[in-house]
Amino acid sequence: MTDLEAEVLALRDPRRLRALIREGLWDRRTTDLVPGFTQANLAILPRTDALDFFRFCQRNPKPCPVLEVTDPGNPEPYLTAPGADLRTDVPRYCVWREGRQVDEVTNISNLWRDDLVAFLLGCSLTFEEALDKAGVPFRPGTARRYRPIYTTSIECVPAGIFQGPLVVSIRPIPPDLVVRSVQITARFPMTHGAPVHIGDPAAIGIADLSNPDNNDGSGFALPPGHVPVFWACGVTPQRVAVRAGVKFMITHAPGHMFVTDIPSEQLAVL
Amino acid sequence: MTDLEAEVLALRDPRRLRALIREGLWDRRTTDLVPGFTQANLAILPRTDALDFFRFCQRNPKPCPVLEVTDPGNPEPYLTAPGADLRTDVPRYCVWREGRQVDEVTNISNLWRDDLVAFLLGCSLTFEEALDKAGVPFRPGTARRYRPIYTTSIECVPAGIFQGPLVVSIRPIPPDLVVRSVQITARFPMTHGAPVHIGDPAAIGIADLSNPDNNDGSGFALPPGHVPVFWACGVTPQRVAVRAGVKFMITHAPGHMFVTDIPSEQLAVL
Repeated sequence: MTDLEAEVLALRDPRRLRALIREGLWDRRTTDLVPGFTQANLAILPRTDALDFFRFCQRNPKPCPVLEVTDPGNPEPYLTAPGADLRTDVPRYCVWREGRQVDEVTNISNLWRDDLVAFLLGCSLTFEEALDKAGVPFRPGTARRYRPIYTTSIECVPAGIFQGPLVVSIRPIPPDLVVRSVQITARFPMTHGAPVHIGDPAAIGIADLSNPDNNDGSGFALPPGHVPVFWACGVTPQRVAVRAGVKFMITHAPGHMFVTDIPSEQLAVL
Repeated sequence: MTDLEAEVLALRDPRRLRALIREGLWDRRTTDLVPGFTQANLAILPRTDALDFFRFCQRNPKPCPVLEVTDPGNPEPYLTAPGADLRTDVPRYCVWREGRQVDEVTNISNLWRDDLVAFLLGCSLTFEEALDKAGVPFRPGTARRYRPIYTTSIECVPAGIFQGPLVVSIRPIPPDLVVRSVQITARFPMTHGAPVHIGDPAAIGIADLSNPDNNDGSGFALPPGHVPVFWACGVTPQRVAVRAGVKFMITHAPGHMFVTDIPSEQLAVL
């Protein structure tokens, strides 16, 4: 571990992490960083698409829980991270044009426009932390940072040009902890909340668990004696926007999230 | 009680009530009608103001819990009331131009436009039903349908042109049931949820409890031995839109709500 890695892992203030990212010193994953604070999926769209996308999120709160929608043209998400700058404070961005990824960058200052609206959506890191704290294991059979995801047969509620299937992530849970895993994650509706399905993958249109959408070559095998539990995944809105062929969109790169100032417990409903 | 009143009070299907309203047979309050189903505050705005208003609602979920936002130009709220028509299915509408009420009507078909977006927001009738069912009295000192409201010193989080103070309603609760009233209403975040304040009215900028904003002449007196408990009120977004001087807006008339097909229990978080 380098000195920088050690320093970043020890950070407990989201503003410090964002400053390092802004200065170009950290362009890697945010997983496991600044524990206890809410991290967010990012989707930046032109104002012309924003109302449709906002309606899509409101209609599909499990995959798209809205933490903040910025004022058009203003890159500061002043409600969830006062002083932050969405043009520089995310480690890596994907740039999309007409539904195709055209670039991956660490700074979008030169791409910013007066008509852009940023959506910050809750992500699963928050409820994974809660599962960890409660002693519910959910990573058996996978590398620590690999979470297999699948396209389901569940159609999201469409809104304007945005439509498409729900994407889910899987976590294998010991049978005696399945109910507990529902209770724990239900506390956090702003970060995907309770599972969308427990058990038989075929019931939600997943034909082959061994071949996730993000198969890195090692595939996935459900560990014996575990129940497959599925949560709505934040990849859903990005996929839906790509499918809609939006003229222009910027998202975070997978795992490279925006870290807010909101303590996760502040979002808990219980 | 007339035959019509008896028929309407006995209705248990929101579609039947909306049909009567659509046919012009019922233009009166919806309070106490079709118990168990979610009623909604209505605000219809041109698309140009919709993104700002939507952001205002997202930023102020206690006064403005969003049940549905319709597709621009489509008067059917097909998610919360498939087949309904927002131009005809509300008993009474207020029409506003440049921040002033210019009309009160029972049908807005002639005012509908291709750029109008309707916001359906949760209202307090749902949690009042829950308080009733749980045996928590909250009407002492007031007529059954009169709920005093007050402008507070709490500023809503602004969004674009929309800004202004939070409006609250008061319910006097016996001291031993205050905690229970929090628990019961917290189950329904989509219909204002838990109180925003318990106790001293001055703490939220209410100087004179005896003079509510909607003083009908009889004023209000806190019954001895009761605690004043304040909930966010759905009048807030309407006031804020009026204050913004929006060019055109249509709302429900007070107490004349849109009745959805959503069972209130379906919106409960616990």
